[in-house]
Amino acid sequence: LCLSVYLSIPSLSVSEDSAMENIVTEKKAEESHRQDSADLLVFILLLTLTILTIWLFKHRRCRFLHETGLAMIYGLLVGVVLRYAIHVPSDMNNVTLSCNVNASPATLLVNVSGKFYEYTLKGEISGSEINDIQDNEMLRKVTFDPEVFFNILLPPIIFHAGYSLKRRHFFRNLGSILAYAFVGTVVSCFIIGLFMYGCVLLMKQIGHLGGDFFFTDCLFFGAIVSATDPVTVLAIFNELQVDADLYALLFGESVLNDAVALVLSSSIVAYQPEGDNTHTFEAMAMLKSFGVFLGVFSGSFALGVATGVVTALISFTFTKLRELPLLETALFFLMSWSTFLLAEACGFTGVVAVLFCGMTQAHYTFNNLSPESQDRTKQLFELLNFLAENFIFSYMGLTLFTFHNHVFNPIFIVGAFLAVFLGRAANIYPLSFLNKITSNFQHMMMFAGLRGAMTFALSIRDTATYARQMMFSTTLLVVFFTVWICGGGTTPMLSCQKIRVGVDSDQENFVSVFGVLSTKQESAWLFRIWYNFDHNYLKPILTHSGPPLTATLPACCGPLARCLTSPQAYENEGQLKDSDSDLILNDGDISLAYGDITVSTDATGAHTSGTPVGGVAVNSDEALDRELAFSDHELVIRGTRLVLPMDDSEHPLPLDSHRHKNETMS
Amino acid sequence: LCLSVYLSIPSLSVSEDSAMENIVTEKKAEESHRQDSADLLVFILLLTLTILTIWLFKHRRCRFLHETGLAMIYGLLVGVVLRYAIHVPSDMNNVTLSCNVNASPATLLVNVSGKFYEYTLKGEISGSEINDIQDNEMLRKVTFDPEVFFNILLPPIIFHAGYSLKRRHFFRNLGSILAYAFVGTVVSCFIIGLFMYGCVLLMKQIGHLGGDFFFTDCLFFGAIVSATDPVTVLAIFNELQVDADLYALLFGESVLNDAVALVLSSSIVAYQPEGDNTHTFEAMAMLKSFGVFLGVFSGSFALGVATGVVTALISFTFTKLRELPLLETALFFLMSWSTFLLAEACGFTGVVAVLFCGMTQAHYTFNNLSPESQDRTKQLFELLNFLAENFIFSYMGLTLFTFHNHVFNPIFIVGAFLAVFLGRAANIYPLSFLNKITSNFQHMMMFAGLRGAMTFALSIRDTATYARQMMFSTTLLVVFFTVWICGGGTTPMLSCQKIRVGVDSDQENFVSVFGVLSTKQESAWLFRIWYNFDHNYLKPILTHSGPPLTATLPACCGPLARCLTSPQAYENEGQLKDSDSDLILNDGDISLAYGDITVSTDATGAHTSGTPVGGVAVNSDEALDRELAFSDHELVIRGTRLVLPMDDSEHPLPLDSHRHKNETMS
Repeated sequence: LCLSVYLSIPSLSVSEDSAMENIVTEKKAEESHRQDSADLLVFILLLTLTILTIWLFKHRRCRFLHETGLAMIYGLLVGVVLRYAIHVPSDMNNVTLSCNVNASPATLLVNVSGKFYEYTLKGEISGSEINDIQDNEMLRKVTFDPEVFFNILLPPIIFHAGYSLKRRHFFRNLGSILAYAFVGTVVSCFIIGLFMYGCVLLMKQIGHLGGDFFFTDCLFFGAIVSATDPVTVLAIFNELQVDADLYALLFGESVLNDAVALVLSSSIVAYQPEGDNTHTFEAMAMLKSFGVFLGVFSGSFALGVATGVVTALISFTFTKLRELPLLETALFFLMSWSTFLLAEACGFTGVVAVLFCGMTQAHYTFNNLSPESQDRTKQLFELLNFLAENFIFSYMGLTLFTFHNHVFNPIFIVGAFLAVFLGRAANIYPLSFLNKITSNFQHMMMFAGLRGAMTFALSIRDTATYARQMMFSTTLLVVFFTVWICGGGTTPMLSCQKIRVGVDSDQENFVSVFGVLSTKQESAWLFRIWYNFDHNYLKPILTHSGPPLTATLPACCGPLARCLTSPQAYENEGQLKDSDSDLILNDGDISLAYGDITVSTDATGAHTSGTPVGGVAVNSDEALDRELAFSDHELVIRGTRLVLPMDDSEHPLPLDSHRHKNETMS
Repeated sequence: LCLSVYLSIPSLSVSEDSAMENIVTEKKAEESHRQDSADLLVFILLLTLTILTIWLFKHRRCRFLHETGLAMIYGLLVGVVLRYAIHVPSDMNNVTLSCNVNASPATLLVNVSGKFYEYTLKGEISGSEINDIQDNEMLRKVTFDPEVFFNILLPPIIFHAGYSLKRRHFFRNLGSILAYAFVGTVVSCFIIGLFMYGCVLLMKQIGHLGGDFFFTDCLFFGAIVSATDPVTVLAIFNELQVDADLYALLFGESVLNDAVALVLSSSIVAYQPEGDNTHTFEAMAMLKSFGVFLGVFSGSFALGVATGVVTALISFTFTKLRELPLLETALFFLMSWSTFLLAEACGFTGVVAVLFCGMTQAHYTFNNLSPESQDRTKQLFELLNFLAENFIFSYMGLTLFTFHNHVFNPIFIVGAFLAVFLGRAANIYPLSFLNKITSNFQHMMMFAGLRGAMTFALSIRDTATYARQMMFSTTLLVVFFTVWICGGGTTPMLSCQKIRVGVDSDQENFVSVFGVLSTKQESAWLFRIWYNFDHNYLKPILTHSGPPLTATLPACCGPLARCLTSPQAYENEGQLKDSDSDLILNDGDISLAYGDITVSTDATGAHTSGTPVGGVAVNSDEALDRELAFSDHELVIRGTRLVLPMDDSEHPLPLDSHRHKNETMS
């Protein structure tokens, strides 16, 4: 098969000496490596500058601009410099091969005078870029492969989110969070998609559209801008000690949000009706897309949880690993990373798997680690998260000027801002009403719907078509606006909505029990089933910190229970601490009353029981108040097990008799 | 310019629908991404397995096989499986373009039916591979780009080596270490090169050589196998608490060794005589190579030290950063990484720069960090080092079977083993004789010359020619042999050479002062000048832990000194600790007598002074002994400054008067 091919080789010095030629090639490779190093150095120095300025801001207590916003500003400035101030001398060594091949293979072998060179596909280049390819050389160099975001930068961010989730508050508000994340994101995606389709039709009418823009593209846009980012707002919440339930709602929502939006966007891409016209509605394709969504989401979820459980089991079995924190940390890190790779290799979504892996690790594996490894893993992921996040945000600023295929369309941009607002409103208000969340919380959640790393990564992943380029440019503006304006306005908004700040965690705990739990029966019910099962069965099997199985399993399972229970569990029994609270919760103490027994589990793991003396911040009035408020839905966290109304028939044994029982057993 | 090009496209379904085509391309990219994830997963699981086995070994106290040796064995096994057990279905989508272009450009643009695709050069493929390219697809996939080793895996290893150097012992033996590292490595390189050239001539005579093999190739081989690896032996030394001076000699030698061998090998590559015959001797080219060596080495050294000093100054100036350990750690990490990138961007050797940066960071910046950041940075680099090292060693095992261009030549291999032995002997024995190192230390150093990560990385960097392929295969065998046999034989060798193990650091400190320092005047002299300058001037300027400059600078520089001295220095003055000792040294306490004052600086920083009571492990007899042994070369480490004979004329002020002086000043 021989085709006519024309080669445009600008001014190549034809040398016969192959050695000299090799040297030239080597020098070129070296030059390219130097350039790469310099490019990366620009980013590293950007991050360094950001860090030093963050320090200055924290020092001066500036709250109007978060570090992510700052990183974006620095990125913007560097982008302007790269775009307009630096002119790179043209590199004339690009060869354009033109041939009528019908495919662009991933690997290309070029036979250059008897030697074979391998080339790998980097991507498509638009026709307009061909002409000034030399000018854009440097700009294209600072533009990373978008897959870097998905494979290197996003996983640590999402894992950290899962790992640092305030799990108690998360589970307590599980119902609302799941509603926001699943129902809310899908609603928001479709509202935005429909609204944008209206805009697109309008643009088509008045001739403002320069290319194809299908309904699926609109839906895709809806999916990517529905992913909210927790970073900026929650950093401020953390600093101001905002109500922990609002925190949990926002954090839980944005974390799961990202996962849902990611899977949703890939399901929309998977929507491929058969036949010629690929952009019509077809029930089968729609169902298939829905199936993809369910399959990918549940597969990733299962995979993430499974790896987490495997890690927990390894750390549970190889207890002597605790003596070698380095090995322990390395193992933890590798297992978490392998979750991502495994999910990607299986065709699931690595980022989603990593999120659930992080949550599982925090809930089970963390308890089996030595205290030193607990610190190490926390700090390691904190650092990775910090670096990755600031990198993404400064890169975002940079791309506004260095990305070459921007399509800024005023109508689309205005429409997008409106659509994002509407979509957020359609997500938050109806669901909040159903979940009986107070109106000031509703407004705050509405306001705090910033778009960040995930939205950016999803939009930059594919910028091949006109529609995608317009989406990318618009998304950038949405991110800038929300991070700067909504992020900066968080503190004024909090005081405007009269949301309490500086809430002591004890007190907050108390309030949330009253305010949220007692009104949301369905959520509490879900929480209770889960907590009972987890605390009585999963924790003892997977960690050393649960109660012994012998105490929680029915008597008939005695031998099995004894076989599965670790010796530490018996030791821990008396002084069991709820290790969850130590993670990042900083929740302080829990002190809840049940009947005539008050068990106060404090952060150090010691507990006091017997008379209803109450915990640190609880006086006798409050204890009485609480008993009244709880009526028949008491939530009692005890040293050994959680007793809730559903197993009320079985009279809870006092702690001492429990321990006695075990002593006689063993 | 139109050339005849033939395209061999195997069975491509020609489809007119561009959308369908895009989907096919996307699916292919997805497939390739999945495959990449699976490949990486293999390595991650390999590492996980290694970690679990290491734990088992540590638990059972096996010393005959180190973790690196173990990682290699696992790598070997996986390599066998990949090579022989797995058959990947052929991917027929590679297109071979053949054209008579005279260069292989870094970027190639292919015009596929109107669309332009960008391809990047991956590398040359040998003619033999072309025929079975489909079979080798998977094997080539698990073979990383060799630059990954230099840009990702080596930097953390080398940085960690510099950061964890036992600096006190290093500086004490500076003379010997520099001699081994510079003179020794060059001698070893030339001995090995000459010997191998003899082998090559012999092979040429008897017709065993299948390609070109020049003298510069032999020298290159000499350079790469002269880099010794500290990992395996020193891990055992650490465990057995072997004499700290032997440790320092070996560690210092192997660390600097790597840097010297790396720069040496690039200088040899840079040896390019002008004219047609590129492999003759030419004085100018030789001098130029020497210039390259000096330039690159000193440039990298200066750059590394400069970045270290800049980081120290930043952490010295922004003292409030200490309140935010996350920012501090991130800054430290980024600055260290930027050293590497900066050096590479400037055309120096990043790995060498990173080594000296690590040493500078440990010596100055470390003292300015908050205790939490000190832990964090130590742990972070420990983890990165551990992962990178085990990755390299397991990869080494893997390549024995997955690398496709092995050239195993029995004569060359036997010659190489002999040459490595001779080279090491020519390095160690003459220099040890000059430096008056005891014979058992000499034999141990001879035995402990393992080859590891650096040798491997250097040899895999370029495997394009026949000579380089033969070198690579032989190097692999040398590494395997030394790591397994010499690494495993370390413990028997130690007992055979009657080298004391389980040396308490106090006692060891005492012995080294007697045994090494008192006999090596020139080394001690170098050490003393350096220590005086560093302790009195550099430390106060760059860290908060030195004595105030007001006390060390002459009186005339008073205003300058006051301006440069941080407030902490005055506070620290009384209770100054020698922070070096805390890093990784684990040296315990220092207790040395001077005249009638004994200052014992213990690990916690508190000090006792006044009567000559001596430190923890020192009784009055030993104190007397020591005073006799020191004669006129006392080495006194005091709370505030180091007093050595060279400034004996100035009578050292007692501590209390020092403090009094500062109090009156401020």
